[in-house]
Amino acid sequence: MAEAVRHDKTARQLRLLSDALDSGRLGPVRRLVNTLSPAEIGNLLESLPPAKRTVVWGLVDAEDDGEVLVHVGDEVRESLLAEMDPDEIVAAVEDLDIDDLADLVEDLPDTVIDEVLKSMDRENRERLEQVLSYPEDTAGRLMNPDVVTVRADTTVDVVLRYLRLRGELPEHTDHLYVVSRRHQYLGRIALAALLTHEPATPINQLIDGEQPAIDVSESAAEVARKFSDHDWLSAPVVDENNILLGRITIDDVVDIIREQAEHQALGAAGLDEDEDLFSPVWRATRRRLIWLSINLATAFLAASVVGQFEGTIDKLVALAVLMPIVAGMGGNAGTQVLALMVRGLALGQVGASNARILLWKEARVALLNGLALGTVLAGIVLLWFHNVGLSLVIAVALTLNLLFAALAGVLVPLALKRAGFDPALASSIFLTTVTDVMGFFTFLGLATLFLLR
Amino acid sequence: MAEAVRHDKTARQLRLLSDALDSGRLGPVRRLVNTLSPAEIGNLLESLPPAKRTVVWGLVDAEDDGEVLVHVGDEVRESLLAEMDPDEIVAAVEDLDIDDLADLVEDLPDTVIDEVLKSMDRENRERLEQVLSYPEDTAGRLMNPDVVTVRADTTVDVVLRYLRLRGELPEHTDHLYVVSRRHQYLGRIALAALLTHEPATPINQLIDGEQPAIDVSESAAEVARKFSDHDWLSAPVVDENNILLGRITIDDVVDIIREQAEHQALGAAGLDEDEDLFSPVWRATRRRLIWLSINLATAFLAASVVGQFEGTIDKLVALAVLMPIVAGMGGNAGTQVLALMVRGLALGQVGASNARILLWKEARVALLNGLALGTVLAGIVLLWFHNVGLSLVIAVALTLNLLFAALAGVLVPLALKRAGFDPALASSIFLTTVTDVMGFFTFLGLATLFLLR
Repeated sequence: MAEAVRHDKTARQLRLLSDALDSGRLGPVRRLVNTLSPAEIGNLLESLPPAKRTVVWGLVDAEDDGEVLVHVGDEVRESLLAEMDPDEIVAAVEDLDIDDLADLVEDLPDTVIDEVLKSMDRENRERLEQVLSYPEDTAGRLMNPDVVTVRADTTVDVVLRYLRLRGELPEHTDHLYVVSRRHQYLGRIALAALLTHEPATPINQLIDGEQPAIDVSESAAEVARKFSDHDWLSAPVVDENNILLGRITIDDVVDIIREQAEHQALGAAGLDEDEDLFSPVWRATRRRLIWLSINLATAFLAASVVGQFEGTIDKLVALAVLMPIVAGMGGNAGTQVLALMVRGLALGQVGASNARILLWKEARVALLNGLALGTVLAGIVLLWFHNVGLSLVIAVALTLNLLFAALAGVLVPLALKRAGFDPALASSIFLTTVTDVMGFFTFLGLATLFLLR
Repeated sequence: MAEAVRHDKTARQLRLLSDALDSGRLGPVRRLVNTLSPAEIGNLLESLPPAKRTVVWGLVDAEDDGEVLVHVGDEVRESLLAEMDPDEIVAAVEDLDIDDLADLVEDLPDTVIDEVLKSMDRENRERLEQVLSYPEDTAGRLMNPDVVTVRADTTVDVVLRYLRLRGELPEHTDHLYVVSRRHQYLGRIALAALLTHEPATPINQLIDGEQPAIDVSESAAEVARKFSDHDWLSAPVVDENNILLGRITIDDVVDIIREQAEHQALGAAGLDEDEDLFSPVWRATRRRLIWLSINLATAFLAASVVGQFEGTIDKLVALAVLMPIVAGMGGNAGTQVLALMVRGLALGQVGASNARILLWKEARVALLNGLALGTVLAGIVLLWFHNVGLSLVIAVALTLNLLFAALAGVLVPLALKRAGFDPALASSIFLTTVTDVMGFFTFLGLATLFLLR
């Protein structure tokens, strides 16, 4: 349903847009495009083939360019930057928030980066350089150094006067941070608290010391976990000496969570989440060949097993007809176990402590499914080939393969995790290899033993 | 990496916990459990097999019970509620926010619901009944009716005095809403604006009329899309007459986004995102049988194709050895196209307007992959079976099946979408059916035409 709705809206814009584009009337296109938010424009650009993308990109209001660049995947971003000359790029990005700028900067040509740095005032330049000094996917990269701090030894009244003097607060500010003279993080004060307490109230009475600070070196994933486990809207970032460096706001965390989901969905098919829907054929081919080659190797492994039983198949061709069923059903059943395991591992719910119990549960499920499906399968095979032995063999082979599937579904992701790989990405290849090999082996093996007289 | 980190932390707790449980020393367990946030406790409970789950659930501080129930999946929630007597449940849930309570209430025994309603003051009871009057997965269900409103015809000073009188604001309040006498939504005022402007400032100068209100009937998915497209932290909810009903905050939206991701990941394997890792064997079996039965039917379809060529296989058994390779590679290649399409549809980036261009791109990618992989495949087959004709036939068959895979990868999700199904869930079955059937058909068909003399 998520899709349905989003689809409908954006698809309608898409249709309008491409009609207007085809008709060559660019006025309506410009008007339509600039009613959208930068994120929506980015989404729209990603949905356009290169030629149209270039045209529409040229129609986007200059002041939106920067925000749009922040909201598209790396590959599309590349294609958009390629359309801009250095000055345009500088103009587009120089007004971005530090954290967004840091997110972009890697993709900019060096000459442009220098230009941008020159165009910034010293404070912002230092802030940017600081943010860039932290590795990607860490809190240091996500944080915005632009925070409002107050001292503990003052009153609401004083803070209010300071804020009125200061004027506008950084976007999404919901707390002020209380720091020591040495800029160490002491706690935070909710804007709401400042509004609901008498002017004379001492600040140190309003400090919320509960909110733990995030270490600048923490991974983006850990940051996302903390935000959603504790329903945070923002959190302070400190260095190893508890010096306040900046803050992370939940809107950036939402982006992380979305990227994680895409990373898993596409990664499981051997693709990169930054893959452009319209990436050049050559590039797309190269990327997919790697993945398909691995699969080809595993396919040969399975084929070689079948090869061992050529003689058997030669005597009973029905085996060739039925063997894909045994192998395929194992793959399907294993995929179900895998899906549960991958989520369990992602949530940290599966570990050495409960793996054995899970294995035991899945084994029993597999056995029951094997009995149920095996009976049906045997029945159909009997009607089809009028061969009791064959129908018994396939029922047993299916049940055994479902057990192997459960085994692989539980153990493969655990093993990959232990080996330091992301089980969401690599598990399915190993799983299907197991279920194909064992499916062919059990079925053809049992047939060789019991059906050849 | 998301997994890595989260895993490490929770897994450590898990190990400590289950060691403590095994040792029967419940003191440490209680201490450990109650250092966690409700979400973390929920996560922990979901990771425990029934027996241990019951023990740990009994050790959770009573005042956390409600929040924990909110944070677990439906199936686990059921198992936890089964452990509590009515009074406990009432005590646990009566202090929850209206939106959380609305989220729980379906799963509670009717007698308990009555108790809860009785225990609430009239205002809250009416609010709950109002929220419950909206269908699930709509803005009406997500909203929290507890909002702070002000009038336009006043000053900052007056509002400040009102807020100090009122005391604490609802959790995650970042804006006050301006309403008319008839409680129509007119706009919002950032807490930050109240803090940064002089007391004498008229409120109507601070009103942000930009923020559009969410219609109470909008779907949760649409709400999530708007929040992440516009980087909202909160948004007002109104009815068809623009009467302000409540507000939605981003922490609830984060939960929606996570659920959507899980729904797709598990749904693609025919599972429900509320499936309990340790759900009873019988229930798990029944649920999976449905999915596996569908797959069995499609497997027979593919097998029946092979059946048409028994005679051919009988004369050249090598075909039986190699045919799974052709079918399997088609499935893998198609899955890659599918992954891109499903994301594109989810983001509304794919529609009638660009489907043909995508199809053309994917066809060329498939052709190139076919030539590359086909050459390799042909070489290996030649070395293996010393049969030039066979190696040519399999290369052509592979290329053709990769083309069918691209075709199915693009068209199947589009067709399902048009038919009103979620392409993320049902596409893969149809795709692999196509690639199996066409893989067997092209390979065995070509072999029959060219290899049998």
